[in-house]
Amino acid sequence: MKLSKRAVEVQASPIRKLMPFADEAKAKGVKIYHLNIGQPDIETPQVMIDVYRNYQDKVLAYGPSQGLLEYRQNLVDYYSRYDIHISTDDIIVTTAGSEAIIFAMMAICDAGDEIIIPEPFYTNYNGFAKMAGAKITPLTTHAEQEFALPPNEEIEKLINVNTKAIMLCNPGNPTGAVYSKQDLERIAQLAIKHDIFVIADEVYREFVYDGLSHTSILTLENIADRAVLVDSISKRYSACGARIGCMISKNEELMAATLKFAQARLCPPTIEQLAASAATKLQAEYFQPTLAEYKKRRDIVFSELQKIPGIVCHKPKGAFYVIAKLTAIEDAEDFAKWMLAEFSENKETVMFSPAEGFYATPGMGKNEIRIAYVLNEDDLVAAMKLLRKGLKKYSAMISY
Amino acid sequence: MKLSKRAVEVQASPIRKLMPFADEAKAKGVKIYHLNIGQPDIETPQVMIDVYRNYQDKVLAYGPSQGLLEYRQNLVDYYSRYDIHISTDDIIVTTAGSEAIIFAMMAICDAGDEIIIPEPFYTNYNGFAKMAGAKITPLTTHAEQEFALPPNEEIEKLINVNTKAIMLCNPGNPTGAVYSKQDLERIAQLAIKHDIFVIADEVYREFVYDGLSHTSILTLENIADRAVLVDSISKRYSACGARIGCMISKNEELMAATLKFAQARLCPPTIEQLAASAATKLQAEYFQPTLAEYKKRRDIVFSELQKIPGIVCHKPKGAFYVIAKLTAIEDAEDFAKWMLAEFSENKETVMFSPAEGFYATPGMGKNEIRIAYVLNEDDLVAAMKLLRKGLKKYSAMISY
Repeated sequence: MKLSKRAVEVQASPIRKLMPFADEAKAKGVKIYHLNIGQPDIETPQVMIDVYRNYQDKVLAYGPSQGLLEYRQNLVDYYSRYDIHISTDDIIVTTAGSEAIIFAMMAICDAGDEIIIPEPFYTNYNGFAKMAGAKITPLTTHAEQEFALPPNEEIEKLINVNTKAIMLCNPGNPTGAVYSKQDLERIAQLAIKHDIFVIADEVYREFVYDGLSHTSILTLENIADRAVLVDSISKRYSACGARIGCMISKNEELMAATLKFAQARLCPPTIEQLAASAATKLQAEYFQPTLAEYKKRRDIVFSELQKIPGIVCHKPKGAFYVIAKLTAIEDAEDFAKWMLAEFSENKETVMFSPAEGFYATPGMGKNEIRIAYVLNEDDLVAAMKLLRKGLKKYSAMISY
Repeated sequence: MKLSKRAVEVQASPIRKLMPFADEAKAKGVKIYHLNIGQPDIETPQVMIDVYRNYQDKVLAYGPSQGLLEYRQNLVDYYSRYDIHISTDDIIVTTAGSEAIIFAMMAICDAGDEIIIPEPFYTNYNGFAKMAGAKITPLTTHAEQEFALPPNEEIEKLINVNTKAIMLCNPGNPTGAVYSKQDLERIAQLAIKHDIFVIADEVYREFVYDGLSHTSILTLENIADRAVLVDSISKRYSACGARIGCMISKNEELMAATLKFAQARLCPPTIEQLAASAATKLQAEYFQPTLAEYKKRRDIVFSELQKIPGIVCHKPKGAFYVIAKLTAIEDAEDFAKWMLAEFSENKETVMFSPAEGFYATPGMGKNEIRIAYVLNEDDLVAAMKLLRKGLKKYSAMISY
């Protein structure tokens, strides 16, 4: 009676696996600033909350497997505001972005097939790939180069007969990188040349700073048949607990096949889709202040990190994460645990994610951490101060 | 640029794949009695609806990957009322029963591993197995024998080195079979002898008629380490759209591995868990009238089916489905399509599921249908009348 190989091999989430240490700290009365998880403190829009509060149906019924038509119609409007022109048939609503990624991987890959992904990448891609039996081929990018995409010659070295797709997270979690239209166009050329898919995770579409603009994979007409968008409302509307996402493609064969997976699990949550549908009406008046708030947070975190000796990081251009290299230490996970188990000041400490799990290349990222700047200004300043003090104490201890 | 083999091979849901025909019929103004899907018309309990209507949090946040502690505590109480004694650590809350089954299959099976399942079985097991790369080995059971489990010698013929589990749906969808304690005990002996897991889908636990009692796999102490329960609130509380289920096992290694899959997808929907948690307080005063209502429906459907010439079926003992063999026709799917596309009487018709997709053995179930008796008395009588007339007309037409 043995578990499956994939169950043994799948990594524990570096975002969540230290939670037992956090729970212990909390049990001892320590307050924890959570910078480990992209759980924003921004209020969920009232239009969404109102949907729950005004729910009238007598029977909480299944919806269609591809998602409620009303919601898909509203999504068509939402995307059109970003110059993404799709029809309701191009959309399958999913249980969060997670399910969209799993569906895309399963529809494109069989066991042993490969997906090229720039690393560091959203760590849970590892888990989804393991579930699908796919192999992630990492394309290493570097903080020193602001996580820029390497030239196509470098990428082509990774392409082989098993390669089925290139997957991009844009804007990038955890890198904060925002790919330009030119970046995407050269990925598109590669995809055409090697006859593979391009999967784009654009859940941070609206979170782009410094006047940069975001280019969606779905605006590239020459790869309309091979472009797959995976999306989520979690960050967009600070509605992580709703678990609503979607997969979009104009490849009819791909969508027909994916619908069969979707039918097997029947449907995504019904009321949550109604709430998500209401949120599609939100426009600039919602996103502008939200973006301004995140920009302020990014600036605070970046400026505070700059003050800490032994930290190397770049200024993120999008999303709400920053990768920080801790040059004085070797094992960021040990440091993260120590911060929870051993360190506190005035009964407070800070939690962040060790970054190793955001890489697929063994050994990469071992002395890096990912910080999610999802708390308000005061909390972020306090958290950065704790990080600074903790790092000083920990560094002194390990060098002793 | 090819899709994966599994995407090509995964079957379309026989419960949902005829929906385009239903939509066309509706567009022509035809009313459809939906007996194709287990979507009850019973009202969702007010205690659940109240949770949505009273929702107060400002931020709809992620919950823990294993599910909200409050909900898991209430589940411990719920199960204890069925003599199932577990702790909160034995539970992972999932996005519906579907995710629980996918997790169980993925944690136990690698590509090529086999799970023995009595057929006909809940059709979506096929889709989940395809996603997990597992192979379902069907153990054929027959309407004429009330879908009784074959003797162990028959089952053992199917066990080989790749066999990782036996999976049972109890009470059975679509069979209506309820396994006795003795049935389960002999499956347990087999599992011990061959060192494999037993997965039990008990989502219809409360729906057992004629004074029979239900035995949970988790009450068998000698297989506590190899028993896996998959469960869902969808039918129990007529809350199919909430998408809340769970996976339960006392095998710590299995649950630790499954938690890593759960961490990858972050968490199940948050408000939905709060609603499910409220429902755990419901006891006999809720279930008794619900059961009485379903028993009445079963009796109506069975008695109406008995009156239709050329239909062979047995009286289901649990759940809310019946498999009916249509002896006069060869292709039940063609008949089901015809009922939607060509037949109507007074602008009404009836939809049911062709049963072939509930079997894994090729050719089995081709002239069978699954009827879900989830509508009220009047609607069921009307639907059965339409089935009778449609079948007569269709039979005459094809024999012409």
